[in-house]
Amino acid sequence: MLKVIYFVDMKRLILSLTFLCASVLCVCAEYGSWIWYPGDYEIWLGNQMNNRRTERGSFYPPYLWRIDSHFPIVEFRKGFHLEEDTKLRIYAEGSYNVVLDGVRLFGAPKELDLKAGNHGLVIQVYNQATPPTLLIKGDKFGTGADWEVCASDKKRVNLNGRIDFEYVKVGSWNFDSPLQRPSEFKLQTMPLKAVSKKQTENGILFDFGKETFGFLQFHGLKGKGTLKISYGESEAEALDWDRAETVDLFTVENGKLTDEITHQVTELEEVYTHPHTKAFRYVGITASPEVEYDDLSMLYEYLPVEYRGSFKCNDEELNQIWNVGAYTLHLTTRESFIDGIKRDRWAWSGDALQSYLMNYYLFFDSDTVKRTTWLLRGKDPVYCHLNTILDYTFYWFVGIYDYYLYTGDEAFLRQIYPRMQSLMEFVLSRTNANGMVEGQPGDWVFIDWTDGPMDKNGEISFEQILFCRSLETMTLCAQLMGNQEDLDKYGKLAENLRAKLEPVFWNEEKGAFVNNVVNGKQSEQVTRYANMFSIFFGYVSPEKQMRIKDNVLLNDKIMKISTPYMRFYELEAFCAMGEQETVLKEMKSYWGGMIKEGATSFWEKYNPEQSGTEHLEMYGRPYGKSLCHSWGASPIYLLGRYYLGVKPTKAGYEEFTVEPILGGLEWMEGSVPTPHGDIKIYRDAKSIRVSSDYGKGTLLFVSEKAPQVTGGELKQIEQNRWSVSFGPKQKVEVSLK
Amino acid sequence: MLKVIYFVDMKRLILSLTFLCASVLCVCAEYGSWIWYPGDYEIWLGNQMNNRRTERGSFYPPYLWRIDSHFPIVEFRKGFHLEEDTKLRIYAEGSYNVVLDGVRLFGAPKELDLKAGNHGLVIQVYNQATPPTLLIKGDKFGTGADWEVCASDKKRVNLNGRIDFEYVKVGSWNFDSPLQRPSEFKLQTMPLKAVSKKQTENGILFDFGKETFGFLQFHGLKGKGTLKISYGESEAEALDWDRAETVDLFTVENGKLTDEITHQVTELEEVYTHPHTKAFRYVGITASPEVEYDDLSMLYEYLPVEYRGSFKCNDEELNQIWNVGAYTLHLTTRESFIDGIKRDRWAWSGDALQSYLMNYYLFFDSDTVKRTTWLLRGKDPVYCHLNTILDYTFYWFVGIYDYYLYTGDEAFLRQIYPRMQSLMEFVLSRTNANGMVEGQPGDWVFIDWTDGPMDKNGEISFEQILFCRSLETMTLCAQLMGNQEDLDKYGKLAENLRAKLEPVFWNEEKGAFVNNVVNGKQSEQVTRYANMFSIFFGYVSPEKQMRIKDNVLLNDKIMKISTPYMRFYELEAFCAMGEQETVLKEMKSYWGGMIKEGATSFWEKYNPEQSGTEHLEMYGRPYGKSLCHSWGASPIYLLGRYYLGVKPTKAGYEEFTVEPILGGLEWMEGSVPTPHGDIKIYRDAKSIRVSSDYGKGTLLFVSEKAPQVTGGELKQIEQNRWSVSFGPKQKVEVSLK
Repeated sequence: MLKVIYFVDMKRLILSLTFLCASVLCVCAEYGSWIWYPGDYEIWLGNQMNNRRTERGSFYPPYLWRIDSHFPIVEFRKGFHLEEDTKLRIYAEGSYNVVLDGVRLFGAPKELDLKAGNHGLVIQVYNQATPPTLLIKGDKFGTGADWEVCASDKKRVNLNGRIDFEYVKVGSWNFDSPLQRPSEFKLQTMPLKAVSKKQTENGILFDFGKETFGFLQFHGLKGKGTLKISYGESEAEALDWDRAETVDLFTVENGKLTDEITHQVTELEEVYTHPHTKAFRYVGITASPEVEYDDLSMLYEYLPVEYRGSFKCNDEELNQIWNVGAYTLHLTTRESFIDGIKRDRWAWSGDALQSYLMNYYLFFDSDTVKRTTWLLRGKDPVYCHLNTILDYTFYWFVGIYDYYLYTGDEAFLRQIYPRMQSLMEFVLSRTNANGMVEGQPGDWVFIDWTDGPMDKNGEISFEQILFCRSLETMTLCAQLMGNQEDLDKYGKLAENLRAKLEPVFWNEEKGAFVNNVVNGKQSEQVTRYANMFSIFFGYVSPEKQMRIKDNVLLNDKIMKISTPYMRFYELEAFCAMGEQETVLKEMKSYWGGMIKEGATSFWEKYNPEQSGTEHLEMYGRPYGKSLCHSWGASPIYLLGRYYLGVKPTKAGYEEFTVEPILGGLEWMEGSVPTPHGDIKIYRDAKSIRVSSDYGKGTLLFVSEKAPQVTGGELKQIEQNRWSVSFGPKQKVEVSLK
Repeated sequence: MLKVIYFVDMKRLILSLTFLCASVLCVCAEYGSWIWYPGDYEIWLGNQMNNRRTERGSFYPPYLWRIDSHFPIVEFRKGFHLEEDTKLRIYAEGSYNVVLDGVRLFGAPKELDLKAGNHGLVIQVYNQATPPTLLIKGDKFGTGADWEVCASDKKRVNLNGRIDFEYVKVGSWNFDSPLQRPSEFKLQTMPLKAVSKKQTENGILFDFGKETFGFLQFHGLKGKGTLKISYGESEAEALDWDRAETVDLFTVENGKLTDEITHQVTELEEVYTHPHTKAFRYVGITASPEVEYDDLSMLYEYLPVEYRGSFKCNDEELNQIWNVGAYTLHLTTRESFIDGIKRDRWAWSGDALQSYLMNYYLFFDSDTVKRTTWLLRGKDPVYCHLNTILDYTFYWFVGIYDYYLYTGDEAFLRQIYPRMQSLMEFVLSRTNANGMVEGQPGDWVFIDWTDGPMDKNGEISFEQILFCRSLETMTLCAQLMGNQEDLDKYGKLAENLRAKLEPVFWNEEKGAFVNNVVNGKQSEQVTRYANMFSIFFGYVSPEKQMRIKDNVLLNDKIMKISTPYMRFYELEAFCAMGEQETVLKEMKSYWGGMIKEGATSFWEKYNPEQSGTEHLEMYGRPYGKSLCHSWGASPIYLLGRYYLGVKPTKAGYEEFTVEPILGGLEWMEGSVPTPHGDIKIYRDAKSIRVSSDYGKGTLLFVSEKAPQVTGGELKQIEQNRWSVSFGPKQKVEVSLK
């Protein structure tokens, strides 16, 4: 066919330049970071991670999910002003071309010598194998989050073939060096040694002292024969090569090692490092008689994050629970948040939501929340639910609601908003005449693993509550985007659905929400899900909350929750109703129970009535249970949110409340991270101390008598409820009488 | 989250086995070919090709198109029966796992020892960088076109998370060896030497004697300095480094060559082969004084195809036109059919349709038609037109109509039908109240490059005619698929639209179809497009055809067609009306004219009134015109279809007609390929000889008197029109009196 003339949209670039002149200094302070199409790199990286799962050596992909790919061709652009002559160095992952000030340059230039003044750069990069990325480094100017990018789905031609490009802001992370190519990203590692080893019937059992994750290393491996390696979260699993969930099989001969799973052959040197990561505490090695090695160690693999949140109290068991919870969350915080580290190793939307919440009280690592959000959502157009699960689509919206509340990061909302719109349109295209969601062909209505039957037909109350919260998230974001049309639309939908919840699902006789409605008829079944979510979403009156508490939460006839996954929300509901003492006992019993069983990270499920290797069994497999599962770490969230009692009330902690509740403890202290520094809290029976680096805080507490307060402004709210307002850097000290 | 239990759908496998028992011999005759998700490899390969385009060394991607990626995870399966114990060897591009007879095997097995009996294999392969592919080789059984595959868009979970897989038949080509990994596919090459060289002002000019394509090779390159290389389809371009469309720039130093465009550094050996292909006849080399080389040659790169069609006649100029046309088509027949080989190098749907038609009369290479069809169509869901152009979407349907008619390949129809459905649904979602298409936001309404203005608003007659033919294609395919619902739906839509064409667009006063209708009002403009397509689509009566001929085709006041692209159809319309003599003269003047100007392949455009380097200019650039453009090769189609006169009348040449028309020639002979052998034709004023390897043929001719016929069955159709029916291998000889 014909030659297509390339239009550099100079009008837009000039417009862009006009805006820029005001912010020259800001732009010139940047020196260049790798950039890409937002979401594309995050999805690609997450795919690598999701596809490292194995089961007895057999590769185990997330085959039931939609797996997306990056745009192979993207176009970056930026209009900018240089105060002085500048040399720029260009790096790209992929083939690229450069249009400078409307002129296509020869070849693929590596350097540009630019004169002071206004400039426009348009750079196209093509890469089918890994996401196309770009880095421009310069003393005064480089690529960064303020660049724009466009891909094929954002191009529109008109009747005569003229192209209109719709650009969005680029994605980036913390890759600032030409050597730090995004496609070569690896988590960090550090060497760890086993803490002990012992001879077993068939070989040697190494104990690394606690649950860990990384690359095994053999030192001085030589000889001829086979090496069987069983990875165990438990000793039993590591001793049971035939049934362990993750294993390896090597043959050694003539100075070469053959991985009998991947068929990779490696020339043996002093140290052999396994190319694939595994989760384990114990490693059982069975070697042929003629195979020898001097030692076994490992490279621990981790995402470098700071432990910003902290918690300490008079109860050592609770302190240990917090510590083990923090480690559990760290182990499952990787390229994205994942469910478990042994065999599972996938990113699930339901699990991620809980990791996000814990993360806000521990690492406050926004980047991992964002990466996980992109990965779970995938690309447009939408043709199925997240992880194929109806509820998981809604959790994704809720996660964005939380993300904005905790971080105040409007720039991310602006990037993700188009995908929120398209996902919500998908949901709305499948609602029934009543404006409610029901499971459609291709939808998995998950809710929870239950020990008894649960009717998943018709309108399920729990799904509508999540749907309602998702519509509220859309409303909030539409408002932030200044999108009046969406604001009206989603606001109305949210309002309508909210107004229907009680009339449709509330059963006055049962004093609770019923599980579902089929053909307009309420089912007889009451389950905990909708009832507990309605409490901490604030969807029911205090009076109804109390009825739910009695009729559902404390009612043994209602099917019990048996997963820590839903236990998270159940305990949250109790805390929201001020039942911290009950929850504290539960934490000590359930999580303390795991620690008594030797847990060094928290489990996928725990049944106090089991003992020994019974704890390891799940899904009908002897070592099927994950002993390091993110949803097991919920005390991190509960202690920060409902004991230290910190919650943002305005996005990004611009305003927040602190309501420390001892719940039976003698004293506690800790810190909660925010986007701008930390909030520090100490509380005992007689005193409270709070301070914050940022934002407008309100300390809330109960006291029969007027307290003595230094720093901040005391107010009496009710008879025995008090508040102290305080600003950044102010130290509040309260003496209770 | 939770562990997902993997269901091997044994019920389906067993069903599959039941079917299989009947066809054991057939299955066991196979030995294994590489297989993949249908379309995914073809799109991936086409992307590689489309992204090799450069412009003055600058990478020039198809940035305005939608560019798709493969499914990173696919699942292959096959139920089969083995008569005896068999060893299978497994090869995959990507990580894989194996489930045999419902049991997940350890690791990634390379070999399977299977006992005689019934078996089921399910293999998942993951590859993000290149399409996941699989090869199983065995003495009695292997992978092949009868395997099935499933990807994420074909999975459906139910309310309780149970997965239902929808499998489709795999894609494959001719890769049968473990060494022939699909992702490493390269076209074939052979060495060619320049036919002459001469000293020029700045260096040396090499002439390869004719238009060619491939990798340049330097022999004995050494010294220090730069090498400037200008590729020229013309001598002028090769001598003009500063303005040539494709160039290279190397520096040589210390036995190393640096490609200054890609920055690749190569250790120089006796022969340096350029890693990228270029199109040229001439190569101009300007080397620094200290750079030396012994010789320059090339590796000609080509798709190995057989020249099955042939044409020869008393007119040597016409014979030469046929030869140059055949070579032009061969040069543009690559990973897919492309437009031009110098700078263009992209796959366009409009250009491809013409290549398909020529191909049926020359190579009959079905694979390249299929690869191009997949590439152009891309993946689901649809969000824009093919190459962004409304008309190009319709040409794609027409191409499938033709493909089935010529090849009878129902298996391919079955594979592509779901994408036909989704593309047609996209079209139907954008029709107006009148059931017609209009340019919508994001649609380029191309039609043709014209020298004067053409109104592209409202309902354009030409687009409706293509739309109608597309609906007819859907109807035909729905029938073949046994899809009654679609048959009813598309049949009705096609019928309704067809019935509207004349009432809406025919202007009795003008005796022609008008160009378009805006707000129900016919425009005053008559253009050639709808009028000529209505003729060879058979949409108008013979009486109206004659009026169109006089009022449009032979009317100089109607805007002339200036591209060989639309000239193809104009000449076809003339031929369809029996104007072979007119068209013969036109061929000799237009195509003969190019040859007189020294063409060794046919051009993108030719203006007989220009001379010298004027011929090279286009798009305002001195060498902007492509001198090897597929649409220039139309005589290949016209001579086979309207002179030798062969056309299939039942899919795959099961029935066909041969109506040889000399059109002013004294004699002609040739052969036309079919899926099963060739049809051979000889004709002069006094005699006709026809024979065919396959199918039921009908020879048609005009004769005042009864002819003498041997072989076949003579019938008189009209006063002076005769037919001879003949079967395979029958030799028909007709003596005319």
